[in-house]
Amino acid sequence: MKTRAAVATAPQTDLEIRDVELDAPRADELQVRIVASGVCHTDAIVRDQWYPVPLPSVLGHEGAGIVEAVGSDVQGFKAGDKVVLGPAYCGRCEQCLAGHPMFCVNFYDRNFGGGRADGSKSFSDGSGEISSHFFGQSSFAEHTNVVASGAVKVPDDAPLDLLGPLGCGIMTGSGAVLNVLQPQPGSSVAVFGTGAVGMAGMLAAKAAGATTIIMVDIVPERLEFAKELGATHTVNSKETDPVEAIKEITGGGVEYALDTTGVPPVFAQMTKSLATRGHGALVGAAKLGTEAPFDIGTLLLSGIKISMVVEGDAVPQEFIP
Amino acid sequence: MKTRAAVATAPQTDLEIRDVELDAPRADELQVRIVASGVCHTDAIVRDQWYPVPLPSVLGHEGAGIVEAVGSDVQGFKAGDKVVLGPAYCGRCEQCLAGHPMFCVNFYDRNFGGGRADGSKSFSDGSGEISSHFFGQSSFAEHTNVVASGAVKVPDDAPLDLLGPLGCGIMTGSGAVLNVLQPQPGSSVAVFGTGAVGMAGMLAAKAAGATTIIMVDIVPERLEFAKELGATHTVNSKETDPVEAIKEITGGGVEYALDTTGVPPVFAQMTKSLATRGHGALVGAAKLGTEAPFDIGTLLLSGIKISMVVEGDAVPQEFIP
Amino acid sequence: MKTRAAVATAPQTDLEIRDVELDAPRADELQVRIVASGVCHTDAIVRDQWYPVPLPSVLGHEGAGIVEAVGSDVQGFKAGDKVVLGPAYCGRCEQCLAGHPMFCVNFYDRNFGGGRADGSKSFSDGSGEISSHFFGQSSFAEHTNVVASGAVKVPDDAPLDLLGPLGCGIMTGSGAVLNVLQPQPGSSVAVFGTGAVGMAGMLAAKAAGATTIIMVDIVPERLEFAKELGATHTVNSKETDPVEAIKEITGGGVEYALDTTGVPPVFAQMTKSLATRGHGALVGAAKLGTEAPFDIGTLLLSGIKISMVVEGDAVPQEFIP
Amino acid sequence: MKTRAAVATAPQTDLEIRDVELDAPRADELQVRIVASGVCHTDAIVRDQWYPVPLPSVLGHEGAGIVEAVGSDVQGFKAGDKVVLGPAYCGRCEQCLAGHPMFCVNFYDRNFGGGRADGSKSFSDGSGEISSHFFGQSSFAEHTNVVASGAVKVPDDAPLDLLGPLGCGIMTGSGAVLNVLQPQPGSSVAVFGTGAVGMAGMLAAKAAGATTIIMVDIVPERLEFAKELGATHTVNSKETDPVEAIKEITGGGVEYALDTTGVPPVFAQMTKSLATRGHGALVGAAKLGTEAPFDIGTLLLSGIKISMVVEGDAVPQEFIP
Ligand SMILES: [Zn+2]
Ligand SMILES: [Zn+2]
Ligand SMILES: [Zn+2]
Ligand SMILES: [Zn+2]
Ligand SMILES: [Zn+2]
Ligand SMILES: [Zn+2]
Ligand SMILES: [Zn+2]
Ligand SMILES: [Zn+2]
Repeated sequence: MKTRAAVATAPQTDLEIRDVELDAPRADELQVRIVASGVCHTDAIVRDQWYPVPLPSVLGHEGAGIVEAVGSDVQGFKAGDKVVLGPAYCGRCEQCLAGHPMFCVNFYDRNFGGGRADGSKSFSDGSGEISSHFFGQSSFAEHTNVVASGAVKVPDDAPLDLLGPLGCGIMTGSGAVLNVLQPQPGSSVAVFGTGAVGMAGMLAAKAAGATTIIMVDIVPERLEFAKELGATHTVNSKETDPVEAIKEITGGGVEYALDTTGVPPVFAQMTKSLATRGHGALVGAAKLGTEAPFDIGTLLLSGIKISMVVEGDAVPQEFIP
Repeated sequence: MKTRAAVATAPQTDLEIRDVELDAPRADELQVRIVASGVCHTDAIVRDQWYPVPLPSVLGHEGAGIVEAVGSDVQGFKAGDKVVLGPAYCGRCEQCLAGHPMFCVNFYDRNFGGGRADGSKSFSDGSGEISSHFFGQSSFAEHTNVVASGAVKVPDDAPLDLLGPLGCGIMTGSGAVLNVLQPQPGSSVAVFGTGAVGMAGMLAAKAAGATTIIMVDIVPERLEFAKELGATHTVNSKETDPVEAIKEITGGGVEYALDTTGVPPVFAQMTKSLATRGHGALVGAAKLGTEAPFDIGTLLLSGIKISMVVEGDAVPQEFIP
Repeated sequence: MKTRAAVATAPQTDLEIRDVELDAPRADELQVRIVASGVCHTDAIVRDQWYPVPLPSVLGHEGAGIVEAVGSDVQGFKAGDKVVLGPAYCGRCEQCLAGHPMFCVNFYDRNFGGGRADGSKSFSDGSGEISSHFFGQSSFAEHTNVVASGAVKVPDDAPLDLLGPLGCGIMTGSGAVLNVLQPQPGSSVAVFGTGAVGMAGMLAAKAAGATTIIMVDIVPERLEFAKELGATHTVNSKETDPVEAIKEITGGGVEYALDTTGVPPVFAQMTKSLATRGHGALVGAAKLGTEAPFDIGTLLLSGIKISMVVEGDAVPQEFIP
Repeated sequence: MKTRAAVATAPQTDLEIRDVELDAPRADELQVRIVASGVCHTDAIVRDQWYPVPLPSVLGHEGAGIVEAVGSDVQGFKAGDKVVLGPAYCGRCEQCLAGHPMFCVNFYDRNFGGGRADGSKSFSDGSGEISSHFFGQSSFAEHTNVVASGAVKVPDDAPLDLLGPLGCGIMTGSGAVLNVLQPQPGSSVAVFGTGAVGMAGMLAAKAAGATTIIMVDIVPERLEFAKELGATHTVNSKETDPVEAIKEITGGGVEYALDTTGVPPVFAQMTKSLATRGHGALVGAAKLGTEAPFDIGTLLLSGIKISMVVEGDAVPQEFIP
């Protein structure tokens, strides 16, 4: 069918809106009319080829829409269903079967490979094929074919324009807090970065009963907003050393910390702000090969633990209500 | 009383054997005649002031000996008991009460402070006071006063000359494996470094049922010895890239890894040799401020976890049989 | 010194208020003037000899008061300090060192033995010795000697009359929820019994973010009160089958459940109200030998887990703020 | 196609060998020629209608065989592959997605429902339809249709006649030990029952490094065999009280215990043989409604934990090598 899509053609170059051809959904796919799609850091860094997704490509990975056609093997969906789109995963590898589909052995291929497992791509135009199936969805399009196992049905009255980011940013931030850090009631949590991921992490920490929640950023307005949403403390790391500030607020270090930035000096700050036996998680993406300094001499004594967490280590169907 | 001790006087300088005066044991201490004391990396790096223990000091932290006098408040020991000596801890802080005495809030003061909590030192000679209570014991002496809560009674027929290292090197290596990494039967483990700590880690992995155990070092004789003790594979990292070798042996990465060296490039190798959702632990000490490179771009995708582990996160009385 | 105490003399018999002699505190004890003492089920069942504490005995195990004298070896307390009293534990056994002092190997002796480890009792009068050190404190007295390691210092402005139960009922209920069940945000919890223990469990579940909290009891007023404190649902088990009610509210079973009653049919209801792979905890005491029915045929299929929890498996110093 | 099967027709009645018709495999199924099928307790109790599987039925749930035809949607299998057959599960419910397919919300329907989800049955003969898909396989037949997601491919040289029980008895025993009890090296484990499940549990405990492994049964020959396979102690519970014997061997109680019998008094013995904070698991099936006595008065003080475990809480594809 004919549809329109925003096509990434080269690094540091604006997306082009093009009329494109969309092929038929396969047996395990849904064809979805996209109603809204969040835009996050990951779209930008892939366009800029931090991860080598083949260009040209339709990106977009926080989509929400309405099912228009259902592949022959798909169960549990029908035309007209509202869906939020999440990453693709194989469902059969050791990580998937252990309940960690965001670490699917085939995750890279299924989400960054530029098309289906058989090599075909859903989009094309006069100039040739265009990569599809980015995060199983390529949602910067009016219509797209998505892997059904990554789609989550939501109620008919759900506000689709708000729900797109559930599949990525919100799952990333709150999943890292709820699935990995698991702060106890009364504990202290610091979050570096106040974007959607950081705010989601903060709200998750609050829901879990953390009573000291410190947000770190360099934008005063966002820190103000974080306070309105429930942060108990904010630190402007442009003006204050966040490690010192966090140690003072917590009396020696924070029990849990989340780095949503992927910026090496921020990662180092996170490691140093932790209390003895504290637990930190990185969720912010950096270019492959980006090295952050890690003070193994000092940190050994503090007995900390650091976890790398993709997409909140969540099971989308379980996580999106 | 009069006794003799090996005294560290300055960095990079040999210890001096001196006749010294030992004061009386306090209410919570034992006076112990040392029969044997292991020597490990930590004695050398403290003499060299990587950690600023006040010099001159009697070092030695892997002692074993026979109780000669018992402080008035000490229960469970009598003169003549054989004991293995472990680190001191307060027993009352949040970490001690949670079952993690090796992360005692007062660990640094009690073990590296150069004397007792009240500032007194057990050793002296004509030139003045000499630091004592190193790791609660300062075992490079014929007689010493030790904190009773760090001493573990062993059977009368125990071979004291072999048991000293139990309190440190062996507890460090096997504690990190058994208490922190906890490999499952059939799993894969890589150990970087084949000193006492690494060998202890290997034997612990074997006891826990790991079936792929890869030892990495640069000394062929030690690798040979590791194989005799039970390693299934060895890698000479002088000749082969250990990350490549481990990935090839394990088909993509090792589930658990232990860095006993504290050498930054080795730490980086450990992080890169891990499988998806693998778990690595650092137990090797480096100078405060030593930075290791940590590739946050690539490692994020692998979802690994890294733990810093002091003294195996063990409870000495539980761990030493 | 002379003081007054309420003395249990025989099962099913009122306590007698007597003038008694209190001996001097030992080196590891505090002498405390009791300001308030909670009364809970456990006092009653011990008087009635469900557990064979030797009578006559001064009971009382939820005391709070002011330190009047400090034993020679005790650190961290001085006359005038306000304290809340918790159970005694040895601090040296495998359970204590693992961070589980409420399962101290010597717990029974230290708390139900009728006196000190050396066999001495603190109280006496003309008729002879009277058992002391019940739960390390025997707080139904104007003055008493308590084991210092079971006492927790609270701020000078703390309301002692409210704090006594912290050492027992509240720690029992909220400890079982926070330390053992550990409900996640958004989860469902059922609590059987709306006494102090049950209410504390409910508030802990709420603090941890549980969003379905079902309280079960037979007293309408208490159920009403539970709702005011935050229960989302209440079930009067006199009128409604609680298993059916809970399954209906939760759509098949509750993820976490707490039995604070120790009544066999209630325990059975708790096990049957759990969802697949749910986790239930028993904290309510029953007579030794009381058998509850446990349907191993049906429950096997549900994959549930049941934990027996004493005093919330808490570390009092950590738990009481 | 025509094939032959052993058909269960009524409780307490021998299976009948009949010529039957087998329908074509569906899109998600494999048609398998059975080479061997284990027989376990579960076949017998289902024939006897402890669980109400509709009769007549082809039972058999420990099958191994060779693929003859592959459904159109099945990936990863081809005709001629050797397979071991495990239970069916939906792969899409909350339990499946969390890595616990043996607690699949649809487990009962898929394995005990008597046919496919759509109500059809694979077998029939002149007298009408015959229940199929028992444990996803109904392996007491020369040919059968099995759910592909429950089949595990094994190497071409694998001895199929030995491998059938892997899918059930062995997974049940060793899964309960490795996935649920998780004994540490040096720990103590007691196993009640020395059938295939109990022996598998024992070998798993040994692989995990348990150093005290106590087998309990009433058949001297099997206890002897258990000792040959690696048990450190055996108890004939016909002659000796196993609770007393286990407490004596372990000095107070065993850290981990497994009841493979589902016999109420044995379950009670298991609970009483546990050490303080010990962990017991039930894997033996009993009739729905079978009540075992559970001494909540005494067990509360011991702080034990009891888990109900179906099929070892395993992921078959991960567990069968
Ligand atoms: Zn996968
Ligand atoms: Zn995103
Ligand atoms: Zn401490
Ligand atoms: Zn050492
Ligand atoms: Zn104890
Ligand atoms: Zn109480
Ligand atoms: Zn399922
Ligand atoms: Zn079976």
